[in-house]
Amino acid sequence: MDMDTYDSVIELAKRRGYLWNSFEIYGGTAGFYDYGPLGAMLKRRVENIWRDIFVINEGYYEIEAPTIGIEEIFVASGHVGGFSDPLTECQTCHESFRADHLVGDVASNPDTLSADELTVVIKDNTIKCPDCEGELGAVYEFNLMFGTSIGPGSKRIGYLRPETAQGMFVDFPRLLRFYREKLPFGVTQIGKAYRNEISPRQGVIRLREFTQAEAEIFVDPRDKSHPGFDSIKNYSVTLYSDPAQSSGKDSVEMGLGEAVEQGIIAHQFLAYALALTHQFLLRVGVSPERLRFRQHMKDEMAHYAVDCWDAEILSDRFGWVEIVGIADRTDYDLNAHSRVSKTDLSVYVEYAEPRIIERTKVKPDMGKIGPAFKGKAKSVVDALNSMDAKNLSGDAITVNIRGEEVTLSTDMFEVRQLTETIHGENIVPHVIEPSFGIDRIIYAVLEHAFREEDVEGEDEGRIVLGLKSEVAPVQAAVLPLLTRDELKGPAREIESALKHKGVMVAYDDSGTIGRRYRRNDEIGTPYSITVDYDTLEDGTVTIRDRDSMKQVRSPVDTIADTVHDLVHGTIRFEEAGTPIA
Amino acid sequence: MDMDTYDSVIELAKRRGYLWNSFEIYGGTAGFYDYGPLGAMLKRRVENIWRDIFVINEGYYEIEAPTIGIEEIFVASGHVGGFSDPLTECQTCHESFRADHLVGDVASNPDTLSADELTVVIKDNTIKCPDCEGELGAVYEFNLMFGTSIGPGSKRIGYLRPETAQGMFVDFPRLLRFYREKLPFGVTQIGKAYRNEISPRQGVIRLREFTQAEAEIFVDPRDKSHPGFDSIKNYSVTLYSDPAQSSGKDSVEMGLGEAVEQGIIAHQFLAYALALTHQFLLRVGVSPERLRFRQHMKDEMAHYAVDCWDAEILSDRFGWVEIVGIADRTDYDLNAHSRVSKTDLSVYVEYAEPRIIERTKVKPDMGKIGPAFKGKAKSVVDALNSMDAKNLSGDAITVNIRGEEVTLSTDMFEVRQLTETIHGENIVPHVIEPSFGIDRIIYAVLEHAFREEDVEGEDEGRIVLGLKSEVAPVQAAVLPLLTRDELKGPAREIESALKHKGVMVAYDDSGTIGRRYRRNDEIGTPYSITVDYDTLEDGTVTIRDRDSMKQVRSPVDTIADTVHDLVHGTIRFEEAGTPIA
Repeated sequence: MDMDTYDSVIELAKRRGYLWNSFEIYGGTAGFYDYGPLGAMLKRRVENIWRDIFVINEGYYEIEAPTIGIEEIFVASGHVGGFSDPLTECQTCHESFRADHLVGDVASNPDTLSADELTVVIKDNTIKCPDCEGELGAVYEFNLMFGTSIGPGSKRIGYLRPETAQGMFVDFPRLLRFYREKLPFGVTQIGKAYRNEISPRQGVIRLREFTQAEAEIFVDPRDKSHPGFDSIKNYSVTLYSDPAQSSGKDSVEMGLGEAVEQGIIAHQFLAYALALTHQFLLRVGVSPERLRFRQHMKDEMAHYAVDCWDAEILSDRFGWVEIVGIADRTDYDLNAHSRVSKTDLSVYVEYAEPRIIERTKVKPDMGKIGPAFKGKAKSVVDALNSMDAKNLSGDAITVNIRGEEVTLSTDMFEVRQLTETIHGENIVPHVIEPSFGIDRIIYAVLEHAFREEDVEGEDEGRIVLGLKSEVAPVQAAVLPLLTRDELKGPAREIESALKHKGVMVAYDDSGTIGRRYRRNDEIGTPYSITVDYDTLEDGTVTIRDRDSMKQVRSPVDTIADTVHDLVHGTIRFEEAGTPIA
Repeated sequence: MDMDTYDSVIELAKRRGYLWNSFEIYGGTAGFYDYGPLGAMLKRRVENIWRDIFVINEGYYEIEAPTIGIEEIFVASGHVGGFSDPLTECQTCHESFRADHLVGDVASNPDTLSADELTVVIKDNTIKCPDCEGELGAVYEFNLMFGTSIGPGSKRIGYLRPETAQGMFVDFPRLLRFYREKLPFGVTQIGKAYRNEISPRQGVIRLREFTQAEAEIFVDPRDKSHPGFDSIKNYSVTLYSDPAQSSGKDSVEMGLGEAVEQGIIAHQFLAYALALTHQFLLRVGVSPERLRFRQHMKDEMAHYAVDCWDAEILSDRFGWVEIVGIADRTDYDLNAHSRVSKTDLSVYVEYAEPRIIERTKVKPDMGKIGPAFKGKAKSVVDALNSMDAKNLSGDAITVNIRGEEVTLSTDMFEVRQLTETIHGENIVPHVIEPSFGIDRIIYAVLEHAFREEDVEGEDEGRIVLGLKSEVAPVQAAVLPLLTRDELKGPAREIESALKHKGVMVAYDDSGTIGRRYRRNDEIGTPYSITVDYDTLEDGTVTIRDRDSMKQVRSPVDTIADTVHDLVHGTIRFEEAGTPIA
């Protein structure tokens, strides 16, 4: 079988310690991958860049809620009721399948079909089991949450969270106090989420356990302008809008200011999130030519959402793949949790200027009502006070007291016009959510960094993982030219100096120097430092740049600082030493 | 009720956004805590210091395995069979209890009693339900793993991992290749682990979902010396050995070299792990006076372990609490996984010098055996080749061929003495494991940092969270003296400059300056920067040191560098500016 790019990337990733099938010695299980030593380091660096942007710079503090959630949360969020995929099981081999995937060739909109409709489509088209040609059973909705129980005796039903978001919504009252009751504010979370896929067959692209980085930004629904919008309004990204998709047009490169002005992106807050997302993805190494923002079509968007954009990357095998979703979730989640938990999740928002409003109020005359209604008088007064008095004309009023109609004659009350000053009101914030699928981003970074290239003057080509030095797991390799003590000594000293600077370094003295360069090209090490006999004489070492394969000689006593600065991009490679001709 | 230190710390932690009860709007659930905005930041910093020590400096790469594991793993590890606590349920109110906890007053060694024995003790001592005085049911062993199922139709049983360690053991073949088949090597993991406690009642000390940081270091069982031992042999820690505990003696301060020499600590590799642990705990802010290493007593140590030491911290409410366990787990885990997965988990280890050994070998004479045994001849020869020939005297040999006894006369074989050169052998590595309970460490850091103190010349005292600046969530506060635009402008610029340096900064302009200082003392902000009218005139700001409350004036144009250097400890506070008298 020919290897496509996905195969090549995964082969390298497995061989070099980026990604491993989980539980491999037990035969593995679909939907689970391990990050090996280099993969976990890459992942950590990507997450920390995300934190630098969203936590440090935007000031959206990170929290950490449990991965196990109690049932009530997911009843409120709708996951107990609606987080499912249609499943059909082969009656012969008992393998399970996504029914909507099986009917892709015969139905134009399988996502929108109910389980019963899918059953009919399968029957009418005599679709059989793809594995054994057996008969397929009736389709039913399979809930995708992993269930468990908390404490002994299945006392309390628990679920592994299907998204990190809910943990932030249920903390809303605490967060609101932390941010001193002022909108907008944001909160973030990076952590595991789970989706018990029916039959995952897309390797690292569709995992049952995955990592999300999500921000929930709570905003005033009446004002979705962003204070920093000016700084990004000329920032250009590739937009593939709903209208463009519907009319078969291409995506376009467009400034975000223009996109908001033209109404393509619903508002400034979403556009700002698109800009941050774009900056983040480029910084970790996603190729800008293989990146676009696709707007959700009306029929694919959640019913409560205002607008939703996916960042998609182009992959060789899977085509365009969603890696980030950016949505305006409105007040849907807070309202849902408020209802189920019976907790007020609103914010008191002060008006810029107090508002003066006219109110019509009914003032009861107790001297008349008391004697007329006796024991019922209080209920009558309460009813009067709580009634909407807008449409009163001064006629008799009829109120309902526990099912009994009671009529008050005009002498029992007075209708007054009042002027009131209102300083603010309680509102339920809307939520802007950029949600990042970290594992898919890692895969995109690997695929976009992967290249095979010829090397001038050599028979064999080389494989390079052209990772940005800010995310490369091993930042520098230290290579004594020969395994002799007089070279190993200084090499170990350089290794130690780099470690103290916090640089992740690999000492490697096995094999020819060429082979060691190739190995470091494959794992993406941006800089290799070679210690040779000149080092002993003139106190310099060779630094080799992975991408250009150019080399400079640089003094050994400042090498730790030089490499640290190279890795952090504060100096260019040309500034690191004297070029070797 | 009087507040003890635990209450005070938790009250502060909740109020200021360090720790929150999970699912609070739904009434909460025992054993689950959220890290709020400051708590998650503190936790991240503590984890990153752990990484700096174990990953960057020791070179033990981190990996990331799933939190869900398949059944086979935990059958092999012994968790399916043996990871349980004895449970008794009240027959009246149906509350569940740890049976071993209930008999603490009447049995001297409740840990060692079986479920049946505990049932008898409860009955004989008429122990009742602590909640309602009801009758308690028979004790049974309750497994503490959270169970779930993977894929539809409970196809595959899964468990939430009870420790991160197993994910590293099952990756052993991949790791061995990554480290180019050479011992010793180490691997680490930081992540969630789960324990479905029967009835957790110790707040943040006993969680059902918690974070572990574990290192598994694979060593040659014949050589547990550590190459870096010299660097720590004079390092002193407090040791509370098994003999000291047994004989009622106190713990002693002792150099690690001496402790290994005296046989108190089993070997250098364990002692080295103790040193790293001690350095880590002090660096994150555990008080050295409230820290000791306690050796496991013979009867509490796992049957397979060679030696085991717990780092314990002294807490006001709970006394000495285990926060780190350091064990030599031997080859127990690798052997178990090898057996169940039928995978070879050994390493070929080359000898320093080839070894020459004498072997006695039986050489069959085919000319005699062939005709004598015909179709059975091959089986006979195989039996001869595989037999232990050590005790042969040249007599006739009897071998067993599929249940049949077959005797060979002395002319059918020859016994020879051979000399063979052996270059190495296959061994199963032993595992040294330092295992850190991150949540308990965070609590220890908070309790040891917490203090209430009087302030000279003021009526009200102050609460200070004296966190080390390397772990403090907010590293600097920027405070305009008054909320006027001419002060807010420069303050916002300082905020922005600090963010660009990667410093976590809080801008705060609400309330009096005194109140803002107090607020920052409570959350542990090490440095506060105040912008006042002098700033506009002479271009300096005030930096206030949280612990000493001393102040210096420092130039505003270098303030970002100054504060960055203060936070990272590269300059002292006295060097940050001109003292204010």
